[in-house]
Amino acid sequence: MEFTSCFPVWDVLTPSQQRRLSAAVQERNIPKGTVIHRGSLDCTGLLLVRSGQLRAYILSDEGREITIYRLIEMDACLFSASCVMRNVQFDVSVEAEKETRVWVIPSDLYQALSEESAAVANYTNALMSSRFSEVMWLMEQIMWKSFDRRLADFLLRESALEGTDTLSITHERIANHLGSAREVVTRMLRYFQDGGLVKLSRGCVELSDPKGLRTLCEG
Amino acid sequence: MEFTSCFPVWDVLTPSQQRRLSAAVQERNIPKGTVIHRGSLDCTGLLLVRSGQLRAYILSDEGREITIYRLIEMDACLFSASCVMRNVQFDVSVEAEKETRVWVIPSDLYQALSEESAAVANYTNALMSSRFSEVMWLMEQIMWKSFDRRLADFLLRESALEGTDTLSITHERIANHLGSAREVVTRMLRYFQDGGLVKLSRGCVELSDPKGLRTLCEG
Repeated sequence: MEFTSCFPVWDVLTPSQQRRLSAAVQERNIPKGTVIHRGSLDCTGLLLVRSGQLRAYILSDEGREITIYRLIEMDACLFSASCVMRNVQFDVSVEAEKETRVWVIPSDLYQALSEESAAVANYTNALMSSRFSEVMWLMEQIMWKSFDRRLADFLLRESALEGTDTLSITHERIANHLGSAREVVTRMLRYFQDGGLVKLSRGCVELSDPKGLRTLCEG
Repeated sequence: MEFTSCFPVWDVLTPSQQRRLSAAVQERNIPKGTVIHRGSLDCTGLLLVRSGQLRAYILSDEGREITIYRLIEMDACLFSASCVMRNVQFDVSVEAEKETRVWVIPSDLYQALSEESAAVANYTNALMSSRFSEVMWLMEQIMWKSFDRRLADFLLRESALEGTDTLSITHERIANHLGSAREVVTRMLRYFQDGGLVKLSRGCVELSDPKGLRTLCEG
């Protein structure tokens, strides 16, 4: 898998732009658990995920987290280059949820290309619209869905992402995804277990009734 | 006030682009209370506010509302042109909160200009980043601020926007801004009144202690 065939606007760049990009792009390996980007503290650049999985989240002053979106193969992480984007006034952190390989396009080069090329700028637009849509979806969930439905939805998505009904995940971790507290998650999971929806064991949540979870979720 | 001096990227357009834009842009008067854009139902175009005030909000299936941002003089409303934007998968409604004059750039022309001109595409980026930042701010508020602090913050912002400490606004209307229910707003306002922070009368909220509200808000 080559960078040139994975970067969606490669073909519309001029030969000179392609040369500059080829010379600057770096491939990086990110061990699982690494926080690769911390809000405005660093300006990593545009990341294109070659393999693995990244999680973008925000942090409260008190250290609470909420996941705003996940990035998998072929997704691009825009906000790790937010230092060069006008008007971005919020901090997103990014960590590797799995062993991840990324291509890094340095921020200053990405900015230069955006200014030269309408296609690159429109690619940025499309990326931002996608992320914006995910955040709006999340906000609607938070505003208008009860916590049991959000949790059911999270378990189903996680199961689809991992390709298994048995999730290796702690209650603490789920709380961090959903912007909630561990105790709240534990209580709701036990309630789910009483209803036969899940089976709990140490560090594990098994979806014993995915259909039931779906029904709850669509409520 | 001319459109050409208010549209931020006018000067970087080619003479031919300027001609097309001049021929297509329309000035429109929007009476107070008019819903000018309803999610994906219509594709109004890019709106540039000449005077007045617009409110962008989302609607739940049950008809609940939450204000996501306001647009005043010289602000541009991007999501009223969302039909031509790739990957925008959410519906924003826009209504005039005051008698408002806007310039409308038709969606198809705006899209054509974005594809031709990196400057226009980057202007779109800057607009989207601004709105994205406002939505992220709002999400942090919803996630991590208690309702009393959100309400105090809303009253202070509203007072700054209107240039007065006496707001003509119903509890219902405040609830729609904050994504809450009228009863919840009424209860909290009475609690504020008991603490000497506001004075309530029919259709009116007077900020009798803005400093106290600010202290609460910064909590």
